[in-house]
Amino acid sequence: MNANKAGSTSFSLGEEIVSRINELAAISETPGQLARLFLTREHRAAADLILGWMRAAGMRAHLDAIGNVCGRYEGEREAAPCLMLGSHYDTVRDAGRWDGPLGLIAAIACVAELNRRGRRLPFAIEVTGFADEEGVRFSSTLLGSRALAGTFDESVLHVRDADGISLREALRTFGLDPDRIGEAARARRELLAYLELHIEQGPVLEQEDLPVGVVTAISGATRLAARLTGVAGHAGTVPMAMRRDALTGAAECIGAIEQFCREDAGGLVGTVGTIHATPGATNVIPGQVSFTIDIRAPSDTHRKLAVAGIVRRIEAIAGRRNLSLQIDVTHDNRTAPCAPWLKAQLAEAIGAEGFRAFELPSGAGHDGMAMIDIADVGMIFVRCRGGISHHPAEHVELADADAGARVLLRFIENFRPRDAACGT
Amino acid sequence: MNANKAGSTSFSLGEEIVSRINELAAISETPGQLARLFLTREHRAAADLILGWMRAAGMRAHLDAIGNVCGRYEGEREAAPCLMLGSHYDTVRDAGRWDGPLGLIAAIACVAELNRRGRRLPFAIEVTGFADEEGVRFSSTLLGSRALAGTFDESVLHVRDADGISLREALRTFGLDPDRIGEAARARRELLAYLELHIEQGPVLEQEDLPVGVVTAISGATRLAARLTGVAGHAGTVPMAMRRDALTGAAECIGAIEQFCREDAGGLVGTVGTIHATPGATNVIPGQVSFTIDIRAPSDTHRKLAVAGIVRRIEAIAGRRNLSLQIDVTHDNRTAPCAPWLKAQLAEAIGAEGFRAFELPSGAGHDGMAMIDIADVGMIFVRCRGGISHHPAEHVELADADAGARVLLRFIENFRPRDAACGT
Repeated sequence: MNANKAGSTSFSLGEEIVSRINELAAISETPGQLARLFLTREHRAAADLILGWMRAAGMRAHLDAIGNVCGRYEGEREAAPCLMLGSHYDTVRDAGRWDGPLGLIAAIACVAELNRRGRRLPFAIEVTGFADEEGVRFSSTLLGSRALAGTFDESVLHVRDADGISLREALRTFGLDPDRIGEAARARRELLAYLELHIEQGPVLEQEDLPVGVVTAISGATRLAARLTGVAGHAGTVPMAMRRDALTGAAECIGAIEQFCREDAGGLVGTVGTIHATPGATNVIPGQVSFTIDIRAPSDTHRKLAVAGIVRRIEAIAGRRNLSLQIDVTHDNRTAPCAPWLKAQLAEAIGAEGFRAFELPSGAGHDGMAMIDIADVGMIFVRCRGGISHHPAEHVELADADAGARVLLRFIENFRPRDAACGT
Repeated sequence: MNANKAGSTSFSLGEEIVSRINELAAISETPGQLARLFLTREHRAAADLILGWMRAAGMRAHLDAIGNVCGRYEGEREAAPCLMLGSHYDTVRDAGRWDGPLGLIAAIACVAELNRRGRRLPFAIEVTGFADEEGVRFSSTLLGSRALAGTFDESVLHVRDADGISLREALRTFGLDPDRIGEAARARRELLAYLELHIEQGPVLEQEDLPVGVVTAISGATRLAARLTGVAGHAGTVPMAMRRDALTGAAECIGAIEQFCREDAGGLVGTVGTIHATPGATNVIPGQVSFTIDIRAPSDTHRKLAVAGIVRRIEAIAGRRNLSLQIDVTHDNRTAPCAPWLKAQLAEAIGAEGFRAFELPSGAGHDGMAMIDIADVGMIFVRCRGGISHHPAEHVELADADAGARVLLRFIENFRPRDAACGT
């Protein structure tokens, strides 16, 4: 039945979503390019638009102490704990329009549909639009969801943006009180679960020919900064056997990292994204090379074993080549596993919509990484064209936006809280 | 006998040379740092000092039409063809004091010694101090020796330095006539040979524990610019098997270049000196990587085969990884082989001074690359500490400077022109 529905041209949820995606994308700091950063005028304009949509969907809605938009659709009885849905509405610079807004707008569309039908559920539904997930302005990600989870780090208030404005000052200018951010925090007992729909930002669903997928975990990430030091020399006068070339050493390390990750069958990815060779002249053997390594895996144990294995290989290469090695951890984010009971209910909803329930890890970070401190977390991924994200070419097909929303709606309508699901 | 002499503390030639090396090094554009560029006030001051040394050594001396210092010590009869000795007296910025001046000052010291003894030879000796070998000011090397060899490219007259002054203007300011550079050219019949003593600028003689060596050829060099293009992507969301990572591709190429050159037993060297990965963020798979390749070998055939072999390997890597490849030759310098008859006479002189006659190629460029157009070329290398050059730490031991000068003097005293040597 649903496969037939997907084959037809009736994408009523999808059409509303795409229209609102475009409306929201028009709110940008830079003409002809999407950029909507935290605590800007455009943040305010976007918040007002979203609050309006929430109210039109039958929700009470307000801006919280950090600038998140918060809507609540009551259940059969007042003050019941909620199923929280959400995503973020800030963007990177020169962004795509789907990363964040799709999950937020789809959630509002689902509530609007329930509201149209006059349907109330045994639990409340809350929809949160997080104010800052990307962390572009103050170089600190997940500020919105951390405030809501009660884990906001107050030292970030002193961080200044590129114009020298501190987060504290920016909050005041926006009309918020930096000393009252704590009021945004929610308690674990208020939430039955946190569920986010988001574009995949990768090519796996496209390859699998599926519109949606169930996320197994938001992979943790470890970032390393490596520096190899050898001896610079004249490209013509130092025989190959007498060289201590830092770049050929780095090249061997990059090859070893790739091979290590390729040999792993469990979703490990490793990336060398930056490399810098000095002195950096055509006719000089590089004496020093710095590069970064980004390592992600669907579990912390897996990632930590991989980091240790990769570091050992790099140390062996440096030792054999008589290069000195400095290697530092610059960033280390734990994995946020998705709750098995939420994955199971998502798989049911996907199956009921006529699709194969396919599981994949999220290599990118999401607000669930913060929300896991106060709630079990689930995620649905929606296919995006070519896996392209953080780029104007980011695109989701109407049919896929519709499929994602239908899965979400079915999930909501059939949602059984954990206690019920587990029979405890 | 000479091994004993080297073991004693009598380094009369060496002491004069080191003293003059230091005197010349005091003439610099930048205090505390050696820089003596073409057609500057310091060029003029250095030229005047050298002209004085030449005259004191019994030579007629003048500045030629490009600013080379030219000294001539007549033979037994006037107007005989000459054995030309020389090296350059310009420097790079933040230079060492031995690169260039050692060969020029050692040649003058040898002539001074002959003059002290009242010795005339069956041929004249000319000593040339080339005004511009490094090419720092006008980005064009060997300007002095090219003018002398009659191969000066007049289009360089329009090239401007970092201050916007053209070579034409700089010549006029210096007191030279840009339209008369042709007058610096010498004829093949005037020269019996060109012989240059120079520091090795590499670590081979140090490793061989030898003060001097016979150069087999000034290696030609080919420089390539390579660009690999794949697809940029999120470091977390693109599985290893779906990546088209330009940097892991470049790393494999760098490894292949190193391996290709290491497997060669004939003096081939290959260097990747610069690398640039874009977009260049820790969490983004590089979509494009550019790098340079510098390839040198002691013969043109050898180098060309190596370039073709390396390009084939890079093409295979790019093809297998589904990366597009752009590869261009940006520079191609022919090899200047040293004349066998000059190598033989140098080996005799080295043996007579008590050292093993060791042959090695010159990976760096020298004025012989231009002089080969009007004369057979020979070169003696002198050991320098740690192979370091183009750096203030560049250093030659007194004993080695002395050994080099004694070899040069013995070579001069026993020099047989090619026709005599070949019996033709």
